[in-house]
Amino acid sequence: MAIKPDYIRPLDLRHGRIDMNHGAGGRASLQLIEEVFAAAFDNDFLRQGDDAARLPPPPPGHGLVMATDGHVISPLFFPGGDIGALAVHGTVNDVAMLGATPLYLSASFILEEGLPLADLVRIVRSMAEASRAAGVPVVTGDTKVVEQGKGDGVFIATTGIGALPPGRRIGGAQARPGDVVLVSGTLGDHGVAVLSLRESLAFETTIESDSAALHGLVAALLASVPEGAVRTLRDPTRGGLASTLNEIARQSRAGITLDEAALPIRAQVEAACELLGLDPLYMANEGKLVAVVAPEAADAALAALRAHPLGAQSARIGTVGVDAQHFVQMRTRFGGRRMVDWLSGEPLPRIC
Amino acid sequence: MAIKPDYIRPLDLRHGRIDMNHGAGGRASLQLIEEVFAAAFDNDFLRQGDDAARLPPPPPGHGLVMATDGHVISPLFFPGGDIGALAVHGTVNDVAMLGATPLYLSASFILEEGLPLADLVRIVRSMAEASRAAGVPVVTGDTKVVEQGKGDGVFIATTGIGALPPGRRIGGAQARPGDVVLVSGTLGDHGVAVLSLRESLAFETTIESDSAALHGLVAALLASVPEGAVRTLRDPTRGGLASTLNEIARQSRAGITLDEAALPIRAQVEAACELLGLDPLYMANEGKLVAVVAPEAADAALAALRAHPLGAQSARIGTVGVDAQHFVQMRTRFGGRRMVDWLSGEPLPRIC
Repeated sequence: MAIKPDYIRPLDLRHGRIDMNHGAGGRASLQLIEEVFAAAFDNDFLRQGDDAARLPPPPPGHGLVMATDGHVISPLFFPGGDIGALAVHGTVNDVAMLGATPLYLSASFILEEGLPLADLVRIVRSMAEASRAAGVPVVTGDTKVVEQGKGDGVFIATTGIGALPPGRRIGGAQARPGDVVLVSGTLGDHGVAVLSLRESLAFETTIESDSAALHGLVAALLASVPEGAVRTLRDPTRGGLASTLNEIARQSRAGITLDEAALPIRAQVEAACELLGLDPLYMANEGKLVAVVAPEAADAALAALRAHPLGAQSARIGTVGVDAQHFVQMRTRFGGRRMVDWLSGEPLPRIC
Repeated sequence: MAIKPDYIRPLDLRHGRIDMNHGAGGRASLQLIEEVFAAAFDNDFLRQGDDAARLPPPPPGHGLVMATDGHVISPLFFPGGDIGALAVHGTVNDVAMLGATPLYLSASFILEEGLPLADLVRIVRSMAEASRAAGVPVVTGDTKVVEQGKGDGVFIATTGIGALPPGRRIGGAQARPGDVVLVSGTLGDHGVAVLSLRESLAFETTIESDSAALHGLVAALLASVPEGAVRTLRDPTRGGLASTLNEIARQSRAGITLDEAALPIRAQVEAACELLGLDPLYMANEGKLVAVVAPEAADAALAALRAHPLGAQSARIGTVGVDAQHFVQMRTRFGGRRMVDWLSGEPLPRIC
């Protein structure tokens, strides 16, 4: 158990694979951490080398925000992204949706025995690149290994901490009758990009995932209108726009009416969904936000979103109303009305 | 996809099982969150109901500490604990080992399709109880579901945030030659308790896991000696005492010499390890800490540890010395010396 090898060879990052030793907490774990994780994420916080990171607190007067997300997407690589970048974007976005500035990320990796190191390196580098691009460092982490057949390549749980400016109260419960509902771009791109790779559904598309960090877009939006005019921000991930709006309606004890003709949906996404018998309103997005804003601020907010590269196709898609049952409804293109319920029935598993 | 059921029955927490719908982000996900997670963890932060939690910041002048840990222990239930309590203790302890006060936890659950809801409820309740006992609430969370055979019951990644008092510098790099090494109790209890249940190793023992939150013990220790006298605190989990001391020696660029006769090890643990050809120095602990303290503070520190219920069997087990190669060595009971290397060779998988 305690034989000291004379010489430790570097990991074979091209042809090597994860084995149970990499999760045992000994020399092999240390080597994996140093040659794969620390090499990619390198920053002063990680370099402290303890089991926790010491971090500067948020600026005086600011509150803390904390969000966590497990990522189990299958396949690990998809058009427009991979699980590594997604794990950064998903958690940065959850922090940003309260109007907070994301500061730090932690990452917990659960690896399956047999995972090619080349895949892990590709994922970790992509994650590090997304973290650098977002300006939110991965400051601490953990790695576990499970036996082949007890996991599925890589799962990544990321947690984010952010700083909340004093007096900011953005949340799902803040929408009020009369408010306007905006969305920052086309719906369903991520869901269709991932589904296009699933064995049972394989079809051809050039649609890419919209996976992106939205804190810059949120900052631009908030700078464009008075404090308090943005009531709710939320990223419509699993369950899509329909589930997100139902959550907001429920939290705010209001109704929401959508305008079908105003929904930005790519023709290719619409076609793919029709082919598969799916509805773009329930398809996951990973780089879009829903904003509920005060009516008098709606024009300025929409203009600010459209002026940002991640919001060029933003649209005004609905309004908040009074509804004791908190229903989400849609005015259809043909002048009718239909319910837009929570996702129920067949799920689209492991879309994030 | 959007059919509104007339009536949602409550989850069958006795006979029900996790299915893919529980991870899809729609109504079934919401029901699982409300009837299992929110019901158990209930607190003002979780009740905010957004994808992130708004939290009071650490007290003025304090720094932040962040730690994360994935938990993949098998089996999920073991003598003295379960994966739920362990997930709280492991992360609380990582925060506490920097001398910080743990404030908040997040939890990411990765569930395998088919998991009995009764098992999940038992785990979540145990986790909630551990969280309440520690005074560290679970303020936000996430749940994903993977197909049967792509996970293993439950994995839980917890992240902790703590407040670090100004001027506190406890860490793996702070040990200095002359310092004294203390341990807060018997070694290897957790590892032996878990191994006793493994199919291939089944043997009888009454040993229970030592799984416990150590922040109270740390507070008692720190109150007993001047600031700066405690150099390093670390919980010897995966890889056991041997790996932890090698980490400290490496980070502090020093050597460590252990005194075998001083190591507190239960006779049952010693016997079980002998039977299995294992060494208690490499067995995981989940409720013990190693403290490296200034020599002049060692007696007071040991007395403070022993006065606490979680440190009654604390012992002085070694000293820090000068060693350019950062070796950990042991004076054996028979007057010899042997190297205590990093864990290498056969690992003990999924011990935490």
